[in-house]
Amino acid sequence: MDDAHLAVLETTLVPLGWSGPITLRTGIDAGVRNTNVAASGGADTTHLAPPKFTASGDITLCEVQTGNSEVRIATAVHLHLAGAVGTWDNTGARIGRRYRNEIELSLVDGKRATLTKTAATYTSRDPAIASPGVAAVGRLRDHAADTAGARQRDEAAWQRLWQRFGTTLEADPRSQLVLNLHIFHLLQTLSPHTADLDAGVPARGLHGEGYRGHVFWDELFVLPVLDLRLPNVARALLDYRWHRLDAARTAAHAIGRPGALFPLQSGSDGQEETPTQLYNHQSSRWMPDNSRRQWHVGLAVAFNAWQHFQVTADYDWLADRGAELIIEVTRFFAASAVHDPADDRFHISGVMGPDEYYDGYPDSPGKGLRDNTYTNVMVAWICDRAGEILNRLTGHARADVVDRLRIDDTELALWSRLGRSLAVSIHADGILSQFDGYETLLEFDWTSYRDRCGNIGRLDLILEAENDSTNRYKLAKQPDVMMLVYLLGEEGLRQQLARLGYPLSQVDLARTVTYYLERTSNGSTLSRVVSASVLAQLDESRSWSLFREALIADLDDTQGGTTREGIHLGAMAGTVDLVARSFAGLQFDSKRISFAPRLPARLASVSFQFAYRGHRIDVDLNREALHLHLLPSTAPPIRFESGPTHVSLAGGEVHDFPVIRHLSAV
Amino acid sequence: MDDAHLAVLETTLVPLGWSGPITLRTGIDAGVRNTNVAASGGADTTHLAPPKFTASGDITLCEVQTGNSEVRIATAVHLHLAGAVGTWDNTGARIGRRYRNEIELSLVDGKRATLTKTAATYTSRDPAIASPGVAAVGRLRDHAADTAGARQRDEAAWQRLWQRFGTTLEADPRSQLVLNLHIFHLLQTLSPHTADLDAGVPARGLHGEGYRGHVFWDELFVLPVLDLRLPNVARALLDYRWHRLDAARTAAHAIGRPGALFPLQSGSDGQEETPTQLYNHQSSRWMPDNSRRQWHVGLAVAFNAWQHFQVTADYDWLADRGAELIIEVTRFFAASAVHDPADDRFHISGVMGPDEYYDGYPDSPGKGLRDNTYTNVMVAWICDRAGEILNRLTGHARADVVDRLRIDDTELALWSRLGRSLAVSIHADGILSQFDGYETLLEFDWTSYRDRCGNIGRLDLILEAENDSTNRYKLAKQPDVMMLVYLLGEEGLRQQLARLGYPLSQVDLARTVTYYLERTSNGSTLSRVVSASVLAQLDESRSWSLFREALIADLDDTQGGTTREGIHLGAMAGTVDLVARSFAGLQFDSKRISFAPRLPARLASVSFQFAYRGHRIDVDLNREALHLHLLPSTAPPIRFESGPTHVSLAGGEVHDFPVIRHLSAV
Repeated sequence: MDDAHLAVLETTLVPLGWSGPITLRTGIDAGVRNTNVAASGGADTTHLAPPKFTASGDITLCEVQTGNSEVRIATAVHLHLAGAVGTWDNTGARIGRRYRNEIELSLVDGKRATLTKTAATYTSRDPAIASPGVAAVGRLRDHAADTAGARQRDEAAWQRLWQRFGTTLEADPRSQLVLNLHIFHLLQTLSPHTADLDAGVPARGLHGEGYRGHVFWDELFVLPVLDLRLPNVARALLDYRWHRLDAARTAAHAIGRPGALFPLQSGSDGQEETPTQLYNHQSSRWMPDNSRRQWHVGLAVAFNAWQHFQVTADYDWLADRGAELIIEVTRFFAASAVHDPADDRFHISGVMGPDEYYDGYPDSPGKGLRDNTYTNVMVAWICDRAGEILNRLTGHARADVVDRLRIDDTELALWSRLGRSLAVSIHADGILSQFDGYETLLEFDWTSYRDRCGNIGRLDLILEAENDSTNRYKLAKQPDVMMLVYLLGEEGLRQQLARLGYPLSQVDLARTVTYYLERTSNGSTLSRVVSASVLAQLDESRSWSLFREALIADLDDTQGGTTREGIHLGAMAGTVDLVARSFAGLQFDSKRISFAPRLPARLASVSFQFAYRGHRIDVDLNREALHLHLLPSTAPPIRFESGPTHVSLAGGEVHDFPVIRHLSAV
Repeated sequence: MDDAHLAVLETTLVPLGWSGPITLRTGIDAGVRNTNVAASGGADTTHLAPPKFTASGDITLCEVQTGNSEVRIATAVHLHLAGAVGTWDNTGARIGRRYRNEIELSLVDGKRATLTKTAATYTSRDPAIASPGVAAVGRLRDHAADTAGARQRDEAAWQRLWQRFGTTLEADPRSQLVLNLHIFHLLQTLSPHTADLDAGVPARGLHGEGYRGHVFWDELFVLPVLDLRLPNVARALLDYRWHRLDAARTAAHAIGRPGALFPLQSGSDGQEETPTQLYNHQSSRWMPDNSRRQWHVGLAVAFNAWQHFQVTADYDWLADRGAELIIEVTRFFAASAVHDPADDRFHISGVMGPDEYYDGYPDSPGKGLRDNTYTNVMVAWICDRAGEILNRLTGHARADVVDRLRIDDTELALWSRLGRSLAVSIHADGILSQFDGYETLLEFDWTSYRDRCGNIGRLDLILEAENDSTNRYKLAKQPDVMMLVYLLGEEGLRQQLARLGYPLSQVDLARTVTYYLERTSNGSTLSRVVSASVLAQLDESRSWSLFREALIADLDDTQGGTTREGIHLGAMAGTVDLVARSFAGLQFDSKRISFAPRLPARLASVSFQFAYRGHRIDVDLNREALHLHLLPSTAPPIRFESGPTHVSLAGGEVHDFPVIRHLSAV
């Protein structure tokens, strides 16, 4: 973690009750194939061209390059043998795509012999290199000798990160361990080292082969964790999207619309990479995959851009890049909203929400939905944010943005109108509908399918094999209405709905949550994170058990084989975020940070640290009090609220909020 | 300028009094050789591997890669013929390393025929691409049709930049034209487009072949212009250095010292690339080139890092990267300073200053100088800045830096001591010496050499050919003592000297300037910029004529053939900077912006805009008044000073300072 280019592997042998010759075999395998995804449908599993090996002195260099993307990778390896090794012999040879060293030595009973293998790796995407090969060999020459120093620096670097990311659950050692694992994986994938690499948030981590490394919308669950701990890394991930605005503009243009349409799945150049067909092993048929209709990825990008600005108050970044991200996404959706004089409302058709079970209506599968509530409410929300940006930016900064993005008053008026008049469907009994027409779908026979199929996470596949379709039923892979509570909070959602002319009572919102929980198969690892978070304020014990289920998703491979294809990074980050977002009830906007603590009964306390506008704030929540400690800083004071009380705190100050029973509608 | 990847060439033919068939020949030349440097000493002039051409439909793709650095470059070209072209024929064929299209058409008397050639270029270092070839072809498909739109967007992008960079000299149209040319070249080389490319400040611009594209210390003259106009681009250039800190640490380590030693000349990986020999055409001999002793490059990096922080107040960047740059350079010099109990002062030996005429004493050439005044005063200055950083950063930000860089109190005490007790040599008559021992050197016979040699810019070569050496005489290629006035200002320099225990009167400082001007051959293009700037307050008419000489350096190729090897980017930027720095006398620190206007007699007025801590400020200076206009902004008010008066101004406010006769010692 101190040096992203360096890896050290130390192997110590101590023969007990035996002495004699042994052979150690080690090397570099450039013939690695990506075979962890079983259902790769015959796709090529070799992504490296044949390697070039150069052995020179005690360093072996392996140079390869990736297939289509032509990224060069160089790995230089140094071997060092120490301890009771006497004379020994090292033979190196190329064997196909591997380079193998065979070290022959004699071990002595009870004496240690240690082989230290140090590797340096660079790619052609790294800064500050002449070439990957030259860089790798140079790094190795400078650092191979100092294994102890490398370990010490690695530990110090992790310690610095852990100060920011460490999250304590007192006292649930098992959950604590898994949470630590999640933080570890998050930082392996996204860290200050990746911030300069034009790298996005791969859904399955850096080492996961699932989805061929594609970037989805999981950053919606990842960036909150980074914004509050390493805002520069979060900014780099938003910049990754900003660099792909042109691809998103081209995608919008291709369907005749202005602005930016971010794809559901994308690779290095930001184009849509979502397959158009999906193989169903249960039916032995290819199913059409219409998930390119999940336009909501842009909403996640815009939401994250706004949150980043809230956390950092970085007006320069907002003016330079953030505003462009938000406004271009807004434009796409504004142009997608069609006014209906009949109800004097705007409607958006042809979309899929995050819930992938619906790609259309029973009589028009694949054509998308009308007025998906998640989409429409979030569009209303970003329309309001786009307008707010033009209010927040003043003077020359505003003039720059208006000039560069060619924003006129007509457009501003349209955004404002959309924020007030997009259509949302509500059932006759007051439940917020998932989309227009959802209410008329059939109820699903959950009991029968649970009994029959066991794991019903992929009802889409099960039903298709029965010549049926998820489009016909009230059922959700992940209930996307609940995402709105997750992202905006109960209050935020009710405010946006009220502004849209749909006042929703706290009771009806709680009923809505219950309604969808009863109709959810949790087919996505993200689903339990969202449900656990939303329930934290409504049903503590159910929230806790969903949190525990979310925690073990990868550790116990609860989806039955998908962890082999890579971790679920969004879900991992989501569980970390949940401690702050839901247990401490942390919310913030540009004027205040608020807490609505709801500590799970199983825990005595939780603690974590977060960063906000130049401050770093230690939070310690137990059953009696929420303890805040602002680390010394000269950043301007911040207003904190919890329940009916509020306080303004400056760097170095501490404050205890008493924990009061949060009013819940359930 | 709107799209760094796109280029359009439009050629229109109108036959007058003639009709008939013609052949247009166009294509892609991947056999380009770098032959503009005459004295390349037999080095290879081909830096591209043999190309691969792919012609498909109306697009031809050329893919090549650079030699050692293995950077891939793809250029896709699209040809379009319009107007009175009737039927025409286009034949494409590879000819060696070129691809050639021959277009045969018939022209009609008086009718226009237009060939539009659109090219898209990507390299493997660009963000958001699958591969350079795929990106280039994709871009071309999206944009080739819209030539008019491309032109319009290009003009709009230049207009936005010109708002910030445009600098008006009223009324000297010739100088104005050259200044515009300089701004143009600066922005061709360094712009928001290059900010994400891990690119430094190449001394000879992007297209210059001199010095093989190496990065020197010219950014000392370039970053002031960018800091005040595009601070994000300036930050990217500092980040370029930050990414090469490891190479600089290795260089320091190689001579047994801690901290960072930035090389005089460096390429992509930040290692020292300065040749060790220089061919003298006048003597037909190889001369030793000891300019690796110019350790002062790190001082320029540290100075720029501090200035960037002053202009932006970006504490996050300072804590993350800026502090590390400054402190690592400080450490190297602190370890290079040796205490002499005899005078209780610290001395630095073995260095060359920016004045390359001295690489040692007459009896020890190549061994460097003792107590080069530029070096020692700047080291004292950065030692004080390193200490100031630890005062400015507070709380957790300071703790982070102290922990990460392992700074202890002993080190802080040493820096503070060095800021007070580095040695500076002063001649018996009060002139600030260029280095210890300078006073004892021989006076040079300027008249005789000027008569005999004409251009005496390179006295080092002239004297070596006569078996003599510049080390023996009082003479300067660029007088580096004057650099101190240039960088720190008269007041700043006198303050630092006073702190060092060398109070220098205003009169002695003016005498020092005159002394060195009389002993300068102006062998560097930077020299005239520095002299013109320093003289602005002392000798307006001489300052103006040096400014004019600096302006025409490249336009008239006054060095006799070096412009062919590339522009002198530092000198170009320096002339732009000089208008603000010297004519308006703009200086700033963390608390105020001050002006000491000194408008050249030749000019009726100058105007420019600059950015400072969220403000953008229009400056208009004429003979009577300095007019300030802060563009509307919500950034905190700023204190402005000029002469005895000061004022605090907020965004949207205007103020006129009367121009008063500046007190000068001359």
